[in-house]
Amino acid sequence: MFEIKYKDGAGRAGVFEVRGKKLETPYLFPVINPKRQVLDVKEIERLGFNGIITNSYIIYRDTALRQRALERGIHALLGFDGVVMTDSGSFQLYQYGSVEVSPSEIVRFQDEIGVDIGVILDIPTPPDVGYERAERELEETLTRAKEAARLSRKMLLAGTVQGSTYAELRERAASGIAALGFDVHAIGGVVPLMEEYRFADLARVILHSKLKLGHAKPVHLFGAGHPVIFAFASLLGCDLFDSASYALYARDGRYITARGTYKLEELHELPCSCEVCAEHSARELKGLEAEEREHLLAKHNLISCLEEIKRVRQAIYEGSLWELVEQRARAHPALLEALRVLKGYSAQLERLEPVTKRSAFFYSGMESLSRPAVARHIERLSWIERRGAELVLLPDCEKPYSRTYRLASSERYHVCIASPVFGVIPLEIEETYPLTQHEGVATLDREQLAFMRRVIAEYAQRFTKVHYHISLEFLGIEGEAFDEVSQFRFAGGEELKLRALADYQLGKGAGEALFAGARAEYSRRTGRIRRAFVDGELVATLRASDGIVVPTIAGAERLLRLRYPRCRVVVAEEARQFAKEGKSVFAKFVVDCDPELKAMQEVVVVDESDELLATGTALLSAEEMLEFERGIAVKPRHRRR
Amino acid sequence: MFEIKYKDGAGRAGVFEVRGKKLETPYLFPVINPKRQVLDVKEIERLGFNGIITNSYIIYRDTALRQRALERGIHALLGFDGVVMTDSGSFQLYQYGSVEVSPSEIVRFQDEIGVDIGVILDIPTPPDVGYERAERELEETLTRAKEAARLSRKMLLAGTVQGSTYAELRERAASGIAALGFDVHAIGGVVPLMEEYRFADLARVILHSKLKLGHAKPVHLFGAGHPVIFAFASLLGCDLFDSASYALYARDGRYITARGTYKLEELHELPCSCEVCAEHSARELKGLEAEEREHLLAKHNLISCLEEIKRVRQAIYEGSLWELVEQRARAHPALLEALRVLKGYSAQLERLEPVTKRSAFFYSGMESLSRPAVARHIERLSWIERRGAELVLLPDCEKPYSRTYRLASSERYHVCIASPVFGVIPLEIEETYPLTQHEGVATLDREQLAFMRRVIAEYAQRFTKVHYHISLEFLGIEGEAFDEVSQFRFAGGEELKLRALADYQLGKGAGEALFAGARAEYSRRTGRIRRAFVDGELVATLRASDGIVVPTIAGAERLLRLRYPRCRVVVAEEARQFAKEGKSVFAKFVVDCDPELKAMQEVVVVDESDELLATGTALLSAEEMLEFERGIAVKPRHRRR
Repeated sequence: MFEIKYKDGAGRAGVFEVRGKKLETPYLFPVINPKRQVLDVKEIERLGFNGIITNSYIIYRDTALRQRALERGIHALLGFDGVVMTDSGSFQLYQYGSVEVSPSEIVRFQDEIGVDIGVILDIPTPPDVGYERAERELEETLTRAKEAARLSRKMLLAGTVQGSTYAELRERAASGIAALGFDVHAIGGVVPLMEEYRFADLARVILHSKLKLGHAKPVHLFGAGHPVIFAFASLLGCDLFDSASYALYARDGRYITARGTYKLEELHELPCSCEVCAEHSARELKGLEAEEREHLLAKHNLISCLEEIKRVRQAIYEGSLWELVEQRARAHPALLEALRVLKGYSAQLERLEPVTKRSAFFYSGMESLSRPAVARHIERLSWIERRGAELVLLPDCEKPYSRTYRLASSERYHVCIASPVFGVIPLEIEETYPLTQHEGVATLDREQLAFMRRVIAEYAQRFTKVHYHISLEFLGIEGEAFDEVSQFRFAGGEELKLRALADYQLGKGAGEALFAGARAEYSRRTGRIRRAFVDGELVATLRASDGIVVPTIAGAERLLRLRYPRCRVVVAEEARQFAKEGKSVFAKFVVDCDPELKAMQEVVVVDESDELLATGTALLSAEEMLEFERGIAVKPRHRRR
Repeated sequence: MFEIKYKDGAGRAGVFEVRGKKLETPYLFPVINPKRQVLDVKEIERLGFNGIITNSYIIYRDTALRQRALERGIHALLGFDGVVMTDSGSFQLYQYGSVEVSPSEIVRFQDEIGVDIGVILDIPTPPDVGYERAERELEETLTRAKEAARLSRKMLLAGTVQGSTYAELRERAASGIAALGFDVHAIGGVVPLMEEYRFADLARVILHSKLKLGHAKPVHLFGAGHPVIFAFASLLGCDLFDSASYALYARDGRYITARGTYKLEELHELPCSCEVCAEHSARELKGLEAEEREHLLAKHNLISCLEEIKRVRQAIYEGSLWELVEQRARAHPALLEALRVLKGYSAQLERLEPVTKRSAFFYSGMESLSRPAVARHIERLSWIERRGAELVLLPDCEKPYSRTYRLASSERYHVCIASPVFGVIPLEIEETYPLTQHEGVATLDREQLAFMRRVIAEYAQRFTKVHYHISLEFLGIEGEAFDEVSQFRFAGGEELKLRALADYQLGKGAGEALFAGARAEYSRRTGRIRRAFVDGELVATLRASDGIVVPTIAGAERLLRLRYPRCRVVVAEEARQFAKEGKSVFAKFVVDCDPELKAMQEVVVVDESDELLATGTALLSAEEMLEFERGIAVKPRHRRR
């Protein structure tokens, strides 16, 4: 069973429980060669791996190995108690064109030798083959998948998505595989793309596969074993990787880093702190006997992979995975190209993007403007109701903007910052994530200018009159220039501000429902709104760290005026009582929810007759909480008394 | 004595010999607190540090410590045999406004206790103070520097550049310090800039200081102890750093990485492979007693700093320092801003940039277009003589371009690629560094488009007629569009090609001098030009890896037709014989050279009467080889028979 703990982008950090053993995802399976293993399995375990992958077909084909595997089981054969996954001969099929085992036989064999996660014998279609071949082979893979899915077994089973580089076939394959109830969804046939640095094509393949795979199963990107790709593939929602590279590269005298690979002879220093690199200089490594060198390189390579996997997990936890990917994209232009390609998949990625994170939004170049958080901001701007107001645009400055300029939006003037990162930032919402926490650059580039012009022009259309500060003339805004900021000075507008925050965070009309006639209470320490009352009743608090509106039970009641299922998570009858008692809402009990719900959004928990039970924070997006059978969907906050 | 081994950008990897002990630069001095040391000096030594820095003023002010230091010497006091550098109380001056020791006294004291590198007691002026104060304090620093420089001493001495954030004062300070013969040039007063993430201002301060400091002394950036800045500061020519951060941050529960700092409680995983992080989980570290946690964090922090220093040294060695800096710039927008600021210093940086490197040119975003290698390429384009030819522009494609298009430039047509990275790439020089080794992206951004338009428009002015492929219409080129590439098909033009290569690499007229009437010999294996003959005499070979023209002695004789001192390195009489015997030319014997000479350029070695002695590769730029007293200036290739 797979459970999400933390989310960032379309990536997730979670726990995959395999027959009582737990893998922390994203997880990397070191590949074990059952015939010649450069690193002892015990050593691999010591380095921190509790799951490995090996090849059941190699074992099957070797009489002695096969015998021993059947007698003693795969765990005893390898001397490893952790999770053992096996590949099924697809790689050999790809390499040699045929294998001498039937698809059902190899699946049965994996189960018989006690494998924890088996894989079907799919047909690995290379990139760029003719459409007909790709389709034919895909149909064969799906037939085999169906057959394998029917076999009774003790092990978990992975079904593989093929379809070459055809988006449509990948989607068809994913739909087919998703329907068969596999425990792991694998994406196959991508090794050539990685070998040829075709990361943009790899991104497309992953995204089209993911589109139809659903969310509840861990996704294994087959053959992805180099750390340059871990952050990127994780961002797109891959959870499992396997690396033979650590050993293959070592044999070839190659040294892996998260920034790329070196031939050992190219190294003058060892830019790493692992046990191998702490104890040897580059010169020493070069001077070793081939076997010892290979062993040490393999160890370094594997540690280097693990380090990046940990970095990715930490990035998901803290919400900086986009930033990590944008850094890694500078390891090779082909990765940058892949990052630029994501712009076309913004809507798909936005659905899974959390609404708030532990860490700040860092602008790292034009690609940052294509992040889902930016597209979402621009969409949500249109949710804010400011009928009849005039737009006032001011240049970017030190945050908080309203303090720097000593003003606020009023009934008449909707004051906004012309932002090089978010286009337009209304003062009403400046304290909410990601606006308050973002960092940009002072030296703007042409992409930022074009972006600002586009967003501002679009936003300005909603207003009868536009005023812009004279220093923004370079943006070519249609409207009236002004020089004197003080004419707009206004320090009130707390209801305006609260309503805008609710509209922006919870959707059109949420401001009216929650905050009509609201009064604010300010924090003495920060001077910021801390709590909001309507008719003397506390309806919401504002979280200081990210400006998120947290409704009270009274506030939740008001939000229920919004048409069903807006802002709601609906729990099944059997979990009603738990929710009412202020306990976590588990995903398996969620029967319906606001389809626009995003992870980290504040929600109202109701029962099937739309009766208010509690409030809480969604830990998953709408699609995820409907699909998952495990893990928490809503972390409780207030319960109805 | 300081010696450069490898160069990249304005950065250098070298050896700094301090009283018989050698530090490999860039080098980081861990700061030792003589009163409370969280990491034992022996442990620091074990981690790989053979130089440390401590504070002589603290020792001076503590009667017991002072007594012991005077009796046993600083090395025995600290239990450390390596290089000991000491600060002089400037930090205390900055913190408390005054110190109780005279500037001469503290310098004498450092020498008396056996310090290897002492520092003058300068006045550390903070950023943004009034100009008058900055100037007054600077004058006082210079007075003290003069006084200190006159003292007789056994130790090496560092003079510090101050001047707050005023470019003019930094330059004045640097000129003053450079004139006094110090062994180390320090840049001071920058800690507040680093603490406030003002990396763009830091870059300006370094660049203005470096402008007048000369090249022959190692430059110490005082107080730079965080790995996010090492690559950047090294790129600008800083050689020495010191870190108290590893210990200060540890006390504060902070965990250093090259991508930024974490509070320990923000960590869910430890994204590192050092001995601390390999043996502990984040949870374990958080659970430790304060003292042990501080000790382990300090160790991790220091290892993390060392790892980045090694990465920087490797990057300089392989020629990927710009790439590393562009990656690191994505750790925080303030670093990206600093990178963008370098655009204004392109000419200064270009003078020190090598003409060829071991590694490829990777485009990583618009900032890559401002690298000195790009500006240099555009300047050198104008060196190529193509009088009377018509310009033909083709779209970027797979390299080598001439093979993909199956054509070459002819007398009539000068065929070029419209390149999103270099603007224009004439086919004649496509195989030369950095053109042949560059990697870009397919999805162009507005900055690239504007860049291409500008470079193409400027280059096109030299030609009477311009033809552009119809697919380049989006560039708005003035000229005639064509669709059919084959009309320009031509496979000869070897003299054209050779002359263009020489012009591009060695300057205007070099093609005429070296290759007038030349015939080429091609490699059977690669089909590329391997050797060039004039009248049956071998005049040059072409290096396969980077297309560099390597003149023979006969070729060198032809190059001497270029007006003195073009292409030349002139050696003193005393080294004449060595050079003639084909031995390395040491910098201290270089009496003159082509002022436009760049590192890694092929040169002609002559004596003072301009008689040809040998040929070789310059390892230093013109300014460097004239200034340095140590190290190799020219690696020999051919000698005159």
